Amino acid sequence: MSHVAEELRADITRLNVGLGERAYDILIGPGLFHEAGERIARLRPGARVGIVTDRHVAERHLATVEAALRAAGLTPTPVIVEPGEKSKCFRVFEEVVDALLAARIERRDVVLALGGGVVGDLAGFAAAALRRGVDFVQAPTSLLAQVDSSVGGKTGINSRHGKNLVGAFHQPILVLADSAALDTLPLREFRSGYAEVAKYGLIDNAPFFAWLERKWQEVFAGGPARIEAIATSCASKAAVVARDEKETGDRALLNLGHTFGHALEAGAGFSQRLLHGEAVAVGMAQAFRFSARQGLCSPEDALRVAAHLKTVGLPTRIRDIPGDLPDTDGLMDLIAQDKKVSRGALTFILARGIGRSFIARDVDPAELRAFLEAERGAI
Amino acid sequence: MSHVAEELRADITRLNVGLGERAYDILIGPGLFHEAGERIARLRPGARVGIVTDRHVAERHLATVEAALRAAGLTPTPVIVEPGEKSKCFRVFEEVVDALLAARIERRDVVLALGGGVVGDLAGFAAAALRRGVDFVQAPTSLLAQVDSSVGGKTGINSRHGKNLVGAFHQPILVLADSAALDTLPLREFRSGYAEVAKYGLIDNAPFFAWLERKWQEVFAGGPARIEAIATSCASKAAVVARDEKETGDRALLNLGHTFGHALEAGAGFSQRLLHGEAVAVGMAQAFRFSARQGLCSPEDALRVAAHLKTVGLPTRIRDIPGDLPDTDGLMDLIAQDKKVSRGALTFILARGIGRSFIARDVDPAELRAFLEAERGAI
Repeated sequence: MSHVAEELRADITRLNVGLGERAYDILIGPGLFHEAGERIARLRPGARVGIVTDRHVAERHLATVEAALRAAGLTPTPVIVEPGEKSKCFRVFEEVVDALLAARIERRDVVLALGGGVVGDLAGFAAAALRRGVDFVQAPTSLLAQVDSSVGGKTGINSRHGKNLVGAFHQPILVLADSAALDTLPLREFRSGYAEVAKYGLIDNAPFFAWLERKWQEVFAGGPARIEAIATSCASKAAVVARDEKETGDRALLNLGHTFGHALEAGAGFSQRLLHGEAVAVGMAQAFRFSARQGLCSPEDALRVAAHLKTVGLPTRIRDIPGDLPDTDGLMDLIAQDKKVSRGALTFILARGIGRSFIARDVDPAELRAFLEAERGAI
Repeated sequence: MSHVAEELRADITRLNVGLGERAYDILIGPGLFHEAGERIARLRPGARVGIVTDRHVAERHLATVEAALRAAGLTPTPVIVEPGEKSKCFRVFEEVVDALLAARIERRDVVLALGGGVVGDLAGFAAAALRRGVDFVQAPTSLLAQVDSSVGGKTGINSRHGKNLVGAFHQPILVLADSAALDTLPLREFRSGYAEVAKYGLIDNAPFFAWLERKWQEVFAGGPARIEAIATSCASKAAVVARDEKETGDRALLNLGHTFGHALEAGAGFSQRLLHGEAVAVGMAQAFRFSARQGLCSPEDALRVAAHLKTVGLPTRIRDIPGDLPDTDGLMDLIAQDKKVSRGALTFILARGIGRSFIARDVDPAELRAFLEAERGAI
């Protein structure tokens, strides 16, 4: 029966993330939030559903999703948090868990994350910890969340020592990526998510990067190219995650641009001054420039990466970021504090070319510092 | 090499808990805390070790353990919490995680739980959540923790909605059960732990229960009978956990006495008025009496269970608990709130005899209420 229903919607792309008994589907297409009830009820008929969302997303999508759940015989209870990274903290985590307990969410019930990356990370960790693990469905509402945080099972909150330092690996049982929901996003936020889309081309899929260079305007406009870009991104991430669920090896490739990027985000105080994807865009351009400086990849590839990111309107250099940032020493300290540090050695994702990234262990701090100094001086 | 070292200590019993790639050893014997460094260094040479402990346990054992770790080339950092159930809360969880991050505990390092069940549950959840999972060693200092909470990977904290409602399944890489450390326990606390020892006989090992009826004084006195009782208990629990790691089936048998017991603990405000094992003792006696009343087991077996628990000094009836408790309605409410509730149906562990317990689903609330009323009236 579910197959017939799928076939009725030729505009929906379905990906299966292969993780053995924890395999799940990612559905991508327009209008999926209207079908959330039916889709979840197929997996957990009659369940109670704790909908974790933020105030802004609730205004746009909560009524749709709640009505869909009720129509399918499910019992929704909304849990609304404030928008923004600050909600990824211990205090809000406790509030969300308590609210889910008050809603009597039990082991066979569902926690639904309706929102961007913050809501997904927070709700996912709450689902992982509630009664030591209840089922979890992602309904990502930002491009970033659809292509990144909704795939792979990473959940968590921030500590005063840094971002995402507390959490769990907890795979969803279903991801509903409503591509039409992205039409309500501000352009800057969509663009920030696009940085992660481009990342999948840079990691190991040069033809996808070339396709984006040609098609990026259609991806921004919506329609089939957008769905294809999201699906290709999710499939890339899913393939890496399936190879390495707990991030002991290959999965680190997904951090391309993230070590530099996290340091810049931290330096900017995780504010609206620099969105996550913007920081990743600068970080990816830097990773390629550093790779070229080390003789690992051609200067042409480094220029091509920066050119495309710049074309879509993303920053590619520290000087593109408004306001003050830490000096080179400060950035080096922030890089050393990054959680990807292993016994004090610096690990970076570098590249031998577009689509040819690799894990570089034991990067020489002196060379890194010289690079950052040169970056600062560059116009 | 490690085998030679093991053989030098004939007084140490080693159990391997078979959970595939997450298999680990439980070592039981006197003086293991003095060997903690050597034992951990074999698994994680050179690691930093965050020692989570409470103020009382720290006075007795921290210096020994810290010295042992340093001598083996490990780097210990103590994280000391207040003793008691109140430390199993969100606030202390955050403090512990932050302290472990400040100590720069990374993915290849270790969190060591040195203490009773509270410390084990709290430290285990902190280890599970820290950087989405770091390795965890248990050094249980109470009989209860040695035979129960140190085996099986359940970790967690309490919510205002109830006990252990927030946490993770996180298996330790090693358990060091120092049987000599139990000599410093108050008798009442040892006896409380003994209730869980007796439980393993009642679940599925009638010969072990009969052995305890004969040997309990030696178990209390210390020496080989104590080690054997701990080892048999751990092996029983390990066997159940290996069959059912995530508590979807058989593992529920370990809750014998716990549904009644938790309701009584909650009714007594989780205070020193009623220790966990004391509540379990009353709960087990009740589970057998309720089973006899339902015609499931013989009245003789129910009497024999209560007689042994009473002989060692444990309570077996509600009237044995000092102070006020909720009335029958109040107890029924507390039972319904227990996390083992599934879609509102009441699940209990009942018995067809000593060593013949089973999972009874859909227990009739009316019969349960009548039983509790009768219990209240009984002398």
